[in-house]
Amino acid sequence: MKAELMAVKALTFDVFGTVVDWRGSIAREVRAVAQEKKLRINATKFADAWRAGYRPAMDRVAAGTLPWTKIDDLHRLILDDVLTKFRVSALSDAEKTHLNRVWHRLKPWSDSVRGLKRLKKRYTISTLSNGNVALLNNMAKNAGLPWDLILSAEIFHHYKPEPEVYLGAAAILGLQPSEVMMVAAHKDDLRAAARQGLRTALVLRPDEYGRGRHPDLSPEPAFDINAADFNDLAAQLGL
Amino acid sequence: MKAELMAVKALTFDVFGTVVDWRGSIAREVRAVAQEKKLRINATKFADAWRAGYRPAMDRVAAGTLPWTKIDDLHRLILDDVLTKFRVSALSDAEKTHLNRVWHRLKPWSDSVRGLKRLKKRYTISTLSNGNVALLNNMAKNAGLPWDLILSAEIFHHYKPEPEVYLGAAAILGLQPSEVMMVAAHKDDLRAAARQGLRTALVLRPDEYGRGRHPDLSPEPAFDINAADFNDLAAQLGL
Repeated sequence: MKAELMAVKALTFDVFGTVVDWRGSIAREVRAVAQEKKLRINATKFADAWRAGYRPAMDRVAAGTLPWTKIDDLHRLILDDVLTKFRVSALSDAEKTHLNRVWHRLKPWSDSVRGLKRLKKRYTISTLSNGNVALLNNMAKNAGLPWDLILSAEIFHHYKPEPEVYLGAAAILGLQPSEVMMVAAHKDDLRAAARQGLRTALVLRPDEYGRGRHPDLSPEPAFDINAADFNDLAAQLGL
Repeated sequence: MKAELMAVKALTFDVFGTVVDWRGSIAREVRAVAQEKKLRINATKFADAWRAGYRPAMDRVAAGTLPWTKIDDLHRLILDDVLTKFRVSALSDAEKTHLNRVWHRLKPWSDSVRGLKRLKKRYTISTLSNGNVALLNNMAKNAGLPWDLILSAEIFHHYKPEPEVYLGAAAILGLQPSEVMMVAAHKDDLRAAARQGLRTALVLRPDEYGRGRHPDLSPEPAFDINAADFNDLAAQLGL
């Protein structure tokens, strides 16, 4: 382990895509809804369209054209659009509310729970997600994610990659930024964390966008660690 | 179980005195410091004096004569006063900093960990303490407290018993106040929670202020539950 990593006391995790498989989980539930309602929906395209609305919605909050709005509510705004786009009109309001909460029921990647348990032995492990606290808590209860605490953009009223989120997490943990390592499958998240002085670990999730639809997965020496999964991360940290 | 308690989804816990024994834990560490430094200090009186400065310090924040200040820093301000009062001048700054963090090392009552594990099976269990997040996280890691999440006055920038703390906790959990039950050994905390619509459970901690120095321990029908300890609370909730 590199000497500068000896000071790390807390690992903060991106969640959507890094800890849980949003695309597969959503597609499964949409497929079940389609079957029940006898609709023809391309479930993975539906999941992709829902997720594609996410960054623009947060950008509207960052720009101030939307007031602070938590992800549950942004997800619902986007869902209503996507349902229109996919010409789905058969859902009641209660059914839409239930479907919107699929984000609370996302399933972890196969190494997530075991890897987190290993990492928890030495480190404080926390979410640092744009998901709101209730969503992250419900997900953790459903999936058995053993977080020490749940930190969220909601607490700071800023979305990643804004600096307030990374600096706010270090401050509320009572740590220097260099004592915190951001863990994510997304290079932009890690680069933003590194700009605020946090340590960084890239974890590869080659199937996040579907098999064969890889984002940029090349390891980068600029990150402190490049890991294949959470167990590899634990091993590289000497656990 | 009363019908209106069927809706409860989360239990939020006061921590100092309710989950952990601040007085015994602090007295033990102060006694060890006194022995090492060959000082004569009445360690339980020292603990009581330190704790006595807590409410007035938070009141200064609530009144606006102090800006928002987290408990770690309030504890240090009070500690410096108490050291002067007890004529202790033998501690270096690093030793004072270490002693101040005794609040991160408080020991749980004997039923706390097991009771929380039982309650966690059905409920979201969270701190709702005036202690800051880092303090509560370090305490949980030291003592093995199995919180789902750590909520603190620090997140809301208001101290209990201000309404913002109770309402803020319900909101961030995505719940109605009536779906949250406040658990505390202190009636004023519970009364303030009840005024905001939360459910309430009194847990008796007869030794909090030392044996034979009981606060008001009479059960009150105004609280939804009056329990002897966390295991009794679990039993009364049908767990």
